[in-house]
Amino acid sequence: MSKVEIIPLGGIGEFGMNCMGIRYRDEMIIIDAGMGFPEETPFGVDISIPNFDFLEEYRDDLTAIILTHGHEDHIGALTYILKKFNLPVYSSRFTLALTEKRLSEHNMLDDVLMHRVKANDIVEIGSFRVEFIHASHSLVDCFSLAIHTPVGTIIHTGDYKIDDTPVIGKPYDLETLGRIGDDGVLALLCDSTNSTVPGRTPSEMAVIPAFEEIFEETEGRLFVATFSSSMHRLQIVFDIAHQFGRKVCVIGRSMQKNVEIAAEQGLLKIPHGTMVDLSSARALSDDEICFLVTGSQGEQRAALWNMATTTFKGIEVEKGDTVVLSARIIPGNEKNISRLIGHLYKRGANIIEERRRLVHVSGHASQEDIRIMVETSKPRFVVPIHGEYRMLFRQKEFIKNHVGKYGDDDIILIENGNVLEIDEFAAKVVEKHELHKTFIDEESMEEIEYDIVRERKKLAYGGAVSLVVLVDKKTHTLAGDPQITFQGVAGIDPLNGFMAEARATVSKAIADMRPEQIANRSVFKENLRIHLKRFVQAKLSSKPVIVTTVVEL
Amino acid sequence: MSKVEIIPLGGIGEFGMNCMGIRYRDEMIIIDAGMGFPEETPFGVDISIPNFDFLEEYRDDLTAIILTHGHEDHIGALTYILKKFNLPVYSSRFTLALTEKRLSEHNMLDDVLMHRVKANDIVEIGSFRVEFIHASHSLVDCFSLAIHTPVGTIIHTGDYKIDDTPVIGKPYDLETLGRIGDDGVLALLCDSTNSTVPGRTPSEMAVIPAFEEIFEETEGRLFVATFSSSMHRLQIVFDIAHQFGRKVCVIGRSMQKNVEIAAEQGLLKIPHGTMVDLSSARALSDDEICFLVTGSQGEQRAALWNMATTTFKGIEVEKGDTVVLSARIIPGNEKNISRLIGHLYKRGANIIEERRRLVHVSGHASQEDIRIMVETSKPRFVVPIHGEYRMLFRQKEFIKNHVGKYGDDDIILIENGNVLEIDEFAAKVVEKHELHKTFIDEESMEEIEYDIVRERKKLAYGGAVSLVVLVDKKTHTLAGDPQITFQGVAGIDPLNGFMAEARATVSKAIADMRPEQIANRSVFKENLRIHLKRFVQAKLSSKPVIVTTVVEL
Repeated sequence: MSKVEIIPLGGIGEFGMNCMGIRYRDEMIIIDAGMGFPEETPFGVDISIPNFDFLEEYRDDLTAIILTHGHEDHIGALTYILKKFNLPVYSSRFTLALTEKRLSEHNMLDDVLMHRVKANDIVEIGSFRVEFIHASHSLVDCFSLAIHTPVGTIIHTGDYKIDDTPVIGKPYDLETLGRIGDDGVLALLCDSTNSTVPGRTPSEMAVIPAFEEIFEETEGRLFVATFSSSMHRLQIVFDIAHQFGRKVCVIGRSMQKNVEIAAEQGLLKIPHGTMVDLSSARALSDDEICFLVTGSQGEQRAALWNMATTTFKGIEVEKGDTVVLSARIIPGNEKNISRLIGHLYKRGANIIEERRRLVHVSGHASQEDIRIMVETSKPRFVVPIHGEYRMLFRQKEFIKNHVGKYGDDDIILIENGNVLEIDEFAAKVVEKHELHKTFIDEESMEEIEYDIVRERKKLAYGGAVSLVVLVDKKTHTLAGDPQITFQGVAGIDPLNGFMAEARATVSKAIADMRPEQIANRSVFKENLRIHLKRFVQAKLSSKPVIVTTVVEL
Repeated sequence: MSKVEIIPLGGIGEFGMNCMGIRYRDEMIIIDAGMGFPEETPFGVDISIPNFDFLEEYRDDLTAIILTHGHEDHIGALTYILKKFNLPVYSSRFTLALTEKRLSEHNMLDDVLMHRVKANDIVEIGSFRVEFIHASHSLVDCFSLAIHTPVGTIIHTGDYKIDDTPVIGKPYDLETLGRIGDDGVLALLCDSTNSTVPGRTPSEMAVIPAFEEIFEETEGRLFVATFSSSMHRLQIVFDIAHQFGRKVCVIGRSMQKNVEIAAEQGLLKIPHGTMVDLSSARALSDDEICFLVTGSQGEQRAALWNMATTTFKGIEVEKGDTVVLSARIIPGNEKNISRLIGHLYKRGANIIEERRRLVHVSGHASQEDIRIMVETSKPRFVVPIHGEYRMLFRQKEFIKNHVGKYGDDDIILIENGNVLEIDEFAAKVVEKHELHKTFIDEESMEEIEYDIVRERKKLAYGGAVSLVVLVDKKTHTLAGDPQITFQGVAGIDPLNGFMAEARATVSKAIADMRPEQIANRSVFKENLRIHLKRFVQAKLSSKPVIVTTVVEL
């Protein structure tokens, strides 16, 4: 009897980089290829992606990539996986439109086969029959997936919330999910992002009253910062702005792009004459304009940060302006957001935060949404996905204690690099691989090797020393004074003879060596490194990286 | 008519590093000398302290340092300021005991004059009369200060909450504060840490019910992680452990030290026989022991992290253990704490977080405490201190909108390095200095210069290149192949001839130079650096630090 394998490459035990392999015999499909924002940004790293080299051993099995929706943590690594494995891509019209731009930046648009699918489509990919289920989320045109395999059906929720009254599009398609559930579901791979939050996630509609109040009471200019992908939110702002006689000017590249695509596809309905460009916006009086801007996370390259600290395209936040931060704080961004708010206050702006008013709702399922998901799909096994381990664990705990019928062995906690084997009788991790994330320099669009980042961390921690020694090729003796240059090494006093002492230390070390110790260059270099390292550590308590160059004369 | 100057060196617009100068004519006292945890830790920086060099211009005016209480963000930089300015220190018995250990680590104990004061003492320091007011906070033996000057009285709240029922010691001394208020207060310098929080901060007593429940329901081992300085919390754990028949074992150096000092001074009352050492603790059965541990912020060197990931002094968290995280999340620590919780869950522990149960209360004044502070002290001016700009601003907003009688000009927002001049008629910033924080390497206990950190950031971002060229001293021509070594530079393929091309680029650049360009060594080096930099940037899209050494033959 065969089994299905669930092989997560990213998104398990971490926020972002969502990517999952699903394998049956010698066929494997990939669900999502997302990017993440690593902590290594001080080391010249812009983004992280899953380690796709891990898929090499499955190269011949790979058949397709399916994208659940268009958020960067689900599609941001697509170009990188496609460079290694040129697979057909399946997704919704809107998601594909978002990916196309990225592909063309990488000059890959002509090389990739894109299959547009819509909700309720069923696509046959080898032994897999993939059914696309309309999902509600903060973005639009999103799917959950029912992956029908010969062993049973796997539901992959993607990102979702059970929104009964979304602003754009239909509610989550529980009917289809229930029908599939009735036919039997082997495993539910279920979003854990909000598994620590009790109750239901409020509908995207829930922010309308607060926005109506804000538009009603605001006399000066209005700035609304939100995620550029929060389509329901953007629709609400356009509608209410229109209702209160304000024009909307969209600022920030990603938001402009998203608005353009969504409007073109009829997903976003912009009331006639409501959207204006920057020069028109400038000509309007303060109570006639609303700026929709990027930068809700305090990103220093985004529109709002620049408007708060200097100017951005001629706009700066001023006394009398109202700034609505219509977004949650993504963990890790607390300090930058607090700094942004400080700058806005200094400029004299009035700030409306989600902590004080209902100007943001989450796009992810809370505990009672998860209950609905589990009770509707009725899976044999539940596998929490998308989240730090704490969130995966709390989903398990919630389902075990509050949904019922599910015991410890029915809810499986996995990690990136695990191979989880499932059939109707059991779900078991049969292999564990350690996966380092892959770092990317977005300027070169190239990978930065893990070892390079490790070297940079050492340089960062203690600085660098360049040691140059001259050696007589024939006699294997010192042929001149060593030259030593320090970069980023703390505590050097140019007046206390430290530099001369360092050179003397190296000279003496060489004088003490036997010619054969010098003749062997690698041993010689390592010996020099150790001598200088000890000297620096004793004198300065610091551990720089020491680079030794031997010049032979 | 003279004025008083308020000169903050730290703690304004940032969390931590609290330090404030108060000056009247040619006399200046310093309130607190705290440390902070900077974001620069990847660059070999352990802590940050205020830039005390700024005080050089006031050297002759400085008369004393007064410590409000013993938290690290108020006393952690004391040794560093004392090394530059040997001033007498005034504080409570408990605070002085905490500082003594630090001073002896720096071999400074004999050189510093320490004045022990208690609540209601009034100390004359030149023209200042400093009155010590008993303050309630998460720590014990804390003061607010009434600094009586010839121009008027300045109240410095220190850190405080208005706790009517503290576990240890008396409530906040509102009576004294009110009396001083009746006599007239010129300015209130008021803690802003919790100024965004509505209502009153709950009493330290408030966590007792949750702890009683936890001790009642827990069958396995119990671990309570809290700040090592949260004395009321420690007292509660000792008391309830005793009540429920558990012994308490304190693990973690800072907590052991604090418990020892507080018990010795009779502040902490440990029920007889309740505290046990590690070996006794190990001999007890699971339901007889409670470990009080450090590491509530997910610090990787602290007890709890090690117990959750490996072992610490033979103790590791196991299935069946209950871990209470009895602390708030300090901004910036979110990710580490989430990781810690993940590790604890993986070990099978039950975790009790403050988000789910009332096992922590803040030590800082919420909005209604701030109202009490303002209404009791009745200052002419309010100056929010201790907090990021957002919090300072929100304190101003709260007082202006909800306390009354205070307009825009009565509540003064300042920044580090400002000189705020006050008299009964006006409060006005008359000077602004930009203060870079000072970084400290705790191993060497030395300062790390700002420029060194900047160099390290460059090394971290792009790696380093060591370029060595040999030049004939007489002919000013190249005397051998250049040698180039790369460290932490991404994208180098050893097989594609990159290295040879790099050397050739340098050789050609030198060949193209005129002898006089080579003769001027600094111009020569800079030229080489630019050539190699352009080559590397074109080939690898990266910007390493290039260190050039010229060897003359």
